[in-house]
This record gives sequence, C-alpha cells and structure tokens, in this order.
Amino acid sequence: MSTGKMILPRTGIGIDVHAYAADEEPRPLWLGGLHWDGERGLAGHSDADPVAHAAADALFSAAGIGDLGTHFGTDRPEFAGASGVTLLAEAARIVRAAGFEIGNVAVQFVANRPKFGPRRQESQDALSAAAGAPVSVTATTSDGLGFAGRGEGISAVATALVYPSQPTGIG
Amino acid sequence: MSTGKMILPRTGIGIDVHAYAADEEPRPLWLGGLHWDGERGLAGHSDADPVAHAAADALFSAAGIGDLGTHFGTDRPEFAGASGVTLLAEAARIVRAAGFEIGNVAVQFVANRPKFGPRRQESQDALSAAAGAPVSVTATTSDGLGFAGRGEGISAVATALVYPSQPTGIG
Amino acid sequence: MSTGKMILPRTGIGIDVHAYAADEEPRPLWLGGLHWDGERGLAGHSDADPVAHAAADALFSAAGIGDLGTHFGTDRPEFAGASGVTLLAEAARIVRAAGFEIGNVAVQFVANRPKFGPRRQESQDALSAAAGAPVSVTATTSDGLGFAGRGEGISAVATALVYPSQPTGIG
Ligand SMILES: [Zn+2]
Ligand SMILES: [Zn+2]
Ligand SMILES: [Zn+2]
Repeated sequence: MSTGKMILPRTGIGIDVHAYAADEEPRPLWLGGLHWDGERGLAGHSDADPVAHAAADALFSAAGIGDLGTHFGTDRPEFAGASGVTLLAEAARIVRAAGFEIGNVAVQFVANRPKFGPRRQESQDALSAAAGAPVSVTATTSDGLGFAGRGEGISAVATALVYPSQPTGIG
Repeated sequence: MSTGKMILPRTGIGIDVHAYAADEEPRPLWLGGLHWDGERGLAGHSDADPVAHAAADALFSAAGIGDLGTHFGTDRPEFAGASGVTLLAEAARIVRAAGFEIGNVAVQFVANRPKFGPRRQESQDALSAAAGAPVSVTATTSDGLGFAGRGEGISAVATALVYPSQPTGIG
Repeated sequence: MSTGKMILPRTGIGIDVHAYAADEEPRPLWLGGLHWDGERGLAGHSDADPVAHAAADALFSAAGIGDLGTHFGTDRPEFAGASGVTLLAEAARIVRAAGFEIGNVAVQFVANRPKFGPRRQESQDALSAAAGAPVSVTATTSDGLGFAGRGEGISAVATALVYPSQPTGIG
C-alpha cells in the first residue's frame, strides 16, 4: 500500500506521584497548575504538582527523548524549584526543539480532594497556555483504596500526542 | 510548514476504581458491561462497572469536556442508578454533541478474577455498541500487589482517541 | 462531513506488574529488554520484564485482539520461558498479521531502582528492534508510596498507536 506523506502522531504516557508533606513541614498545595488555598500540600521537588509533571513526562515520552529526570535533573539546577507550569512550558519547548508539534495532553489525577470541578477550566487554561496546546485535566477517586484512597498522596496519569514537524509516511 | 487541513486525533485518559462490596451488603458484579454470575460485586454509584466508567472518562478526557462527575453528578439524578453501558452510551452522545467523532477506546482492568478471556468478545461487543466505536477490553493481574492484588477492588485504565468533526490544521 | 479515506490510528493501553522474587529464590532482573547485573530480580512467568510485557499488551489492546493471556497462554507452551523481547517481537508480528501497522509504543515504569537514565537508549534500541517501531521507555518513582514505593515490585504502563493497513474513513 502507498499512502503518500501523512502526519502520523506518536503517543506518550506519563505518571507522577507525590506524597503529602509531613505535618511538621507544611507546604502549599499546587495541583493542575493552581494553588489550592487551605489544602494540605504535597512533598517533593519543585512545587510537587503531579498533574503538571505527568503532562510534561507524557510529552517527553511521546517524543522519545527521555523523562523529567533526563531534562530537569541535577545538571540543570535552575529548575530545582521551578513551578509545574514552568516545567511544562520548558518541556513543550524542548519537545518542539526536538522536531515535534504537540497535539494534545490529557491528565487525570486520583485524589480524595480538593473538589476539582469548580476550577477545572482555570487549571486547563493554565496548563494549556504553558504547553501551547490543549491540556485536559480530570479527577477521580480510588474509592478509598490504595495510597490515594488512604490520603497518603496524589497520583496523576497523562497521555499525549505529538507529531513530527515534517510529514512521514507508512505503508 | 503548511500541512493543509488534516484530521488530527486527540488522546484521552480515564481511570476508575471500585472496592468490593462488604459481605453484609452483597451486590452483583458488573464488569465490562456484563453481569458475572456468582462473582462478588463491587460497591459504588450505579452498577460500579470500572471498565465502562474508565471508558466514558477517557472519552470526556479526550474531548476536554470534564469527567464523570461533571456530566453524571448530582445534578443529573436520572443517571444515579444507570448501568455502565448506559453511562458509556450517554458519554459518547455528549462527546459527539460537543463536536467530536470517536476513533476507539481501549480499556485494561486489573483484577485477580473473574477469568475474562472466555467473555472478552461479548464484553467488547456490548461496550462497542454503547460507544458506537471500537472498544477493546483486556485484563491483567498485579501479581498479588496493591489493592487489586489483595482482592480489595478492581481498577481500570482507558485511553481513547477522538477527532474533531471538522478538519483542523497544524503547522 | 465527508473526509474520504484516511489513515486513522487506534490507541491501546497495557499495564504489567511483577513482584520481586523471594530472597530464597533469587532471579536476575530483566527490565526494558535488558539484564541488570547485581539487581534483585522479579518473579513471574518468562523473564518477568514488566516493560516489555506492558508494551506487548498495549499493542494487542490497540489492535483489539486480546491480551498477553490470549496469545501467550498455556496453549502456546513454546513461549512459557520466552524473554520479554521475544514476546514483544511475537506480539508485533501477530498485530501486523491481524492487519495493522505499528505507529509507536511508549512505556513508563514505576520503581525505586535501578537507575535507568544511563541505559535508556540501550533499552529503547532493544525494544524498538523487537517491535519494528519506535518504543520509548521512561522511568519514575512513586515517592515511597504504594507497592512500587515500598519496593515490593515494579509496575509499567504503556500506550501504543496502531493503524489499519488499509485506509478507513470516518464521518
Ligand atoms: Zn513530580
Ligand atoms: Zn466508577
Ligand atoms: Zn508480565
């Protein structure tokens, strides 16, 4: 079969997990690119936003150019304390520089709280602006099961589609 | 680069988890759109079918229009007790009304039982009819680990592709 | 809308989990198609490589033709001890024989160790050669949470895109 030149997408996957900060070391909660006032924060590098981090990892995964550790590891100290939005914007820049357009990113996080619906659009707007492409964010619980269900942390899973900037053929 | 008008898919992700019902409140098991006779049932809203729910959530995620809570929350009491198949069919209708065609949905669930292989095609047929598009369903175990491995509940993860009904361009 | 004949991809999802082998029955670690010298091995069928297995499952899922159990179950004893790379190559062959081209596969695994970055390219090369298509492999931790965080096992999640060998239309 001859199909000529087509734009063929590549899929990627990203998972990110952060434990809640210990009571003795309270932190603000950053989730989906937003600050959540009055909510218990997550521990970890930078602002510990699992939604933004999973989105960035899915972009790297789709492009096949490594992961968060590859690009924001200890050799780039300027990103040590960067926000999730900043990391996602930088990830999108790196992916484009590697020769890809970004189709979209979809992220779902698993947590008992916060109540996400009222701020979903605000979150999607913040992350979509950072990625320069549509980022959808959804929420679910795990029915009390696992570490998310026990309130020990928040996990996020993302998929992304990217396209080579130059058309390629199959078939 | 000018690529002209292309149909570009959007990816989505959906996760759904249900705990097994307590022994004192036995329920039937619904999984993958099918009733499983003699199997311990799952707790939760509607028929607690994590496969159908993950599929619906992945469709919403791909379209960027929210999640199960957005569309089947307390403001739509007519869906309070709906089956997973009914919810998936309604999710597909909503996604199409929002301007998307559905490419396919793929769901994998993690559980020690039931033995899924003999009824896989029946499950796929039920869910594909509901979605009006191919839905593949696969099964795995978690080697005894985590809540699924301990037999506390069943989790399902889905991806979906949707397409804008009107061609869009990139580049 | 009439879109004519287009090549439309199908998405798939694959999850694979293996527990670490008991101290009394030490095994070598196979992960991402590579042997990891000096690392504690995983238990399970064949070489227990969750990355290769998740990749194969995602391909089957995208094609809608079952899962690892369907194709490498007890009725095909010749694959009982096969390596993950061998299973992935056979999965790719089966998917192509079913009428699909393979776009790409993306896998992320969750584990505290081994340190993956230095061998990521080697892993991707091994799996991409097996699949006959790009396979990206990324790594993350779960911040000490869940079975992966407690060092009980390794989980991997994969997405894949496949294309029908014959163009199909939507709309
Ligand atoms: Zn993170
Ligand atoms: Zn549910
Ligand atoms: Zn396996």
